[in-house]
Amino acid sequence: MAMQNKARLPCTSSFLVLLWLLRPALGVPDPAQREQLMLQEASMQTGGRMTLTVAEQKLDARLHRLKEQEMNNIPFPPAVHFFKAKPLIQQSEVFKLLHRMPKGGALHIHSMSLVSVDWLVKNVTYRPHCYICFTWDNSVRFVFSERQPFPRWDCFYWQLLQTLRDRTGDPHAFDLSLVQQLTLFTDDPEGKYPNQDVVWEKFEKSFIAAAGLISHAPVLRDYLYQGLEELHQDNIQYLELRSGLSRTYELDGSIHDKLWTLRTFQQVSNKFKLDHPEFFGARIIISVHRALGVSEVKAAVKEAIELQREFPEVVAGFDLVGREDSGRSLWYFREALSLPAELGVTLPFFFHAGETDDEGTDVDQNILDALLFNTTRIGHGFALPHHPIAKELSRRRNVAVELCPISNQVLRLVSDLRNHPAATLMSEGHPLVISSDDPSLFGSSGLSYDFYQAFVGIGGLRANLGTLKELVLNSIRFSSLSAQQKETSQKMWQKKWDVFISACS
Amino acid sequence: MAMQNKARLPCTSSFLVLLWLLRPALGVPDPAQREQLMLQEASMQTGGRMTLTVAEQKLDARLHRLKEQEMNNIPFPPAVHFFKAKPLIQQSEVFKLLHRMPKGGALHIHSMSLVSVDWLVKNVTYRPHCYICFTWDNSVRFVFSERQPFPRWDCFYWQLLQTLRDRTGDPHAFDLSLVQQLTLFTDDPEGKYPNQDVVWEKFEKSFIAAAGLISHAPVLRDYLYQGLEELHQDNIQYLELRSGLSRTYELDGSIHDKLWTLRTFQQVSNKFKLDHPEFFGARIIISVHRALGVSEVKAAVKEAIELQREFPEVVAGFDLVGREDSGRSLWYFREALSLPAELGVTLPFFFHAGETDDEGTDVDQNILDALLFNTTRIGHGFALPHHPIAKELSRRRNVAVELCPISNQVLRLVSDLRNHPAATLMSEGHPLVISSDDPSLFGSSGLSYDFYQAFVGIGGLRANLGTLKELVLNSIRFSSLSAQQKETSQKMWQKKWDVFISACS
Ligand SMILES: [Zn+2]
Ligand SMILES: [Zn+2]
Repeated sequence: MAMQNKARLPCTSSFLVLLWLLRPALGVPDPAQREQLMLQEASMQTGGRMTLTVAEQKLDARLHRLKEQEMNNIPFPPAVHFFKAKPLIQQSEVFKLLHRMPKGGALHIHSMSLVSVDWLVKNVTYRPHCYICFTWDNSVRFVFSERQPFPRWDCFYWQLLQTLRDRTGDPHAFDLSLVQQLTLFTDDPEGKYPNQDVVWEKFEKSFIAAAGLISHAPVLRDYLYQGLEELHQDNIQYLELRSGLSRTYELDGSIHDKLWTLRTFQQVSNKFKLDHPEFFGARIIISVHRALGVSEVKAAVKEAIELQREFPEVVAGFDLVGREDSGRSLWYFREALSLPAELGVTLPFFFHAGETDDEGTDVDQNILDALLFNTTRIGHGFALPHHPIAKELSRRRNVAVELCPISNQVLRLVSDLRNHPAATLMSEGHPLVISSDDPSLFGSSGLSYDFYQAFVGIGGLRANLGTLKELVLNSIRFSSLSAQQKETSQKMWQKKWDVFISACS
Repeated sequence: MAMQNKARLPCTSSFLVLLWLLRPALGVPDPAQREQLMLQEASMQTGGRMTLTVAEQKLDARLHRLKEQEMNNIPFPPAVHFFKAKPLIQQSEVFKLLHRMPKGGALHIHSMSLVSVDWLVKNVTYRPHCYICFTWDNSVRFVFSERQPFPRWDCFYWQLLQTLRDRTGDPHAFDLSLVQQLTLFTDDPEGKYPNQDVVWEKFEKSFIAAAGLISHAPVLRDYLYQGLEELHQDNIQYLELRSGLSRTYELDGSIHDKLWTLRTFQQVSNKFKLDHPEFFGARIIISVHRALGVSEVKAAVKEAIELQREFPEVVAGFDLVGREDSGRSLWYFREALSLPAELGVTLPFFFHAGETDDEGTDVDQNILDALLFNTTRIGHGFALPHHPIAKELSRRRNVAVELCPISNQVLRLVSDLRNHPAATLMSEGHPLVISSDDPSLFGSSGLSYDFYQAFVGIGGLRANLGTLKELVLNSIRFSSLSAQQKETSQKMWQKKWDVFISACS
């Protein structure tokens, strides 16, 4: 199969020859030589050496025309905040094509933010026995219970949600207020979230609010199925889900352990595959919060090793989650993260690293450390282009960066996505995959919105159908699937791709 | 002298050896090896291989401590718009040190925006015979005239400025309104300038407003002297000024030609050097607007060749100015720009190129074309990191990028300066100099504010005194001075540097 390392370095001999050829002509450029340099540069970008069929070339030309039109739009969607850009993107012809495109795998999505909040509100909060409580800091908590729940330290007064909704007299407005509790959406994102600290605070609040709903055992089962359904609707064929495997609870207050969650995930994804034979499957990257101590992370690593041994088809590996800038660095956890290698076992790592604007800090070293701990992919890698050694290591070892443009914008790492550092990575053909991190919290879904931002905003007019094809193929190539599974998956994907091309070109 | 090419490529053999050494250790990183990689990466950044004296090391440690404190500030000045950041920066201890630092040359400043607007308003508009007129589009025009000026197509009613000021009864408020006409300053930059088109419109309006004042012959003479004085106050020793050599007028309406302007510039800078023996001098880069046609630019190139032959000490070379995104590309002017090479003469080019967010457009090719036309430096080069071939060419040929952070932010190419693409260039030790483009329009002055943004924002915690020293040395190394002049200038600079170090360390 054609999945070898195709690293294309700027210092290959052909490049040196080109430079040499160029020397005497400088001053009065020869149009042919200029053309050759432009082609050379274009060939270095993601997908730049992809050979396209005639039908693909036709679609490529169409995409280029559509993109040219969209680049004249004011406001230009990738240049403004996603909350304002979303309705514009929905009308985009490029977006509609990206939505229809079979996108392979979603490799960086968190379990707490997999399913649209609309579904949570319209389906889950309408179920019986759902209680709600308002905290002193303007947040909410939910719990399902067969009797009145006990007061908790953060929640004294629980009300039956349905009773409250009826009493308000305006269920629509009430549901909208719930949506606002569970997402970051606002009409004034720059005003309401003036900096990263504020937006991260609201971000974590929303997670806590959703937890009460999602960790109810019967809900979790439906939630996971609905999540796969939404990905499938967005023409995605595979999922690697970051999950803490939180414990779940029943109506009578009894608790299921992590194993139950893992088994449920396995059952649901098997069921989904049966119902949708063209879906490749779903795996879990076990994730623990970087606020924990070293010994707790050590225990989590040990547990992940065991769970992987027991559920090799489901468990893909391990990650640390939570905001890097205010959390503990990978190096802080080095004792825990060295365990697998010391024990002589494999536990693939999929570390979040470099999700920061703060160059030269300890946190900024996470990128190098992720690579030293032999990470399989890098979550975000926002800071990677500022780290030439780490970038070279990542490229040579084919450690793909999971690029989540909308997440980076909403969490205020960058405002105009044309300034996203991945523009440099794309221009160099660095191994990349596109993902959506926390789609439901950002009000996006699946991968289409993030593909739009990567393709139109970060890639600019230069990114083409070859770029898209390579990004999609990368999501299979850099997945945690076995070589054999990758081959099968790619074949299944190719069939869908061919249908897409012939329908759209 | 020590001004050879010290290009440090990521693909040197030592780097390969390092990678090789690293391989077997991955998984359980060896702290010593990790340290070595971090040092290796740090050594690649701008100034990373600079050897510091003991006193310099002391100041470096002090700078690092101060910077660490400032990085915890909310708001963090480089992350917010300069109009809001300016008062914060003025209080910064790092800024105060940068202000005192001898900064070498300012290589990218436009003549129309050299002198603080305060001086224009408080000095120039208080001179006798100054008339003002308000246009239909809320802009102003000025003219000095011994009698009532004639109505013009854009200005029907001229009033004697002093009479008007007296009549308003509030000269302070009146002067403030003039300042607002002549700069981009506003309390609400994001609201007032929602996109690049709007801010460029105001930008060009302010230029036209200032022109009436500056192109009055007696004012121009004082203006240039005052400009050099302000640079000198900011501890700058040298200037390369982009100027259109506009014609000037006398009180009786008589006109001086370009030659007069050039001679005046020469006289003023010679006078300034006499008054300030530690100042190296000033040169002109003749600049014409990219809105002109090919034949006009051809004529301008020919004229620049002649002027350079006649005034070799003053004329450094040639450039095209005006907004790239809405203007004509370098390739459009290829016939004109090939002239010098075809005629077998040298006319150094200092092209603005890549001052754009729009990847893959014709304008975006300006960077490669600037290099193909053998440019001596690149103005802005904002898009350079997205062009691997052009970047490599620029690096290997020592074509320095003139980095003007505040300009890029105010003109809305990037909002948070930590996302400035030059962060990548700095991390790789790409040839760079710092400049301020249009300081008076942005409300900055000299180079200190831009050095602050480059050092604290773009460079992050990692940039150090070695970075600053290399950036300053670059401003001599990559200037248009002769080898001999560079040597002399560097010696003069070194003396000032030593005084600075011993006073501040
Ligand atoms: Zn994430
Ligand atoms: Zn400029």
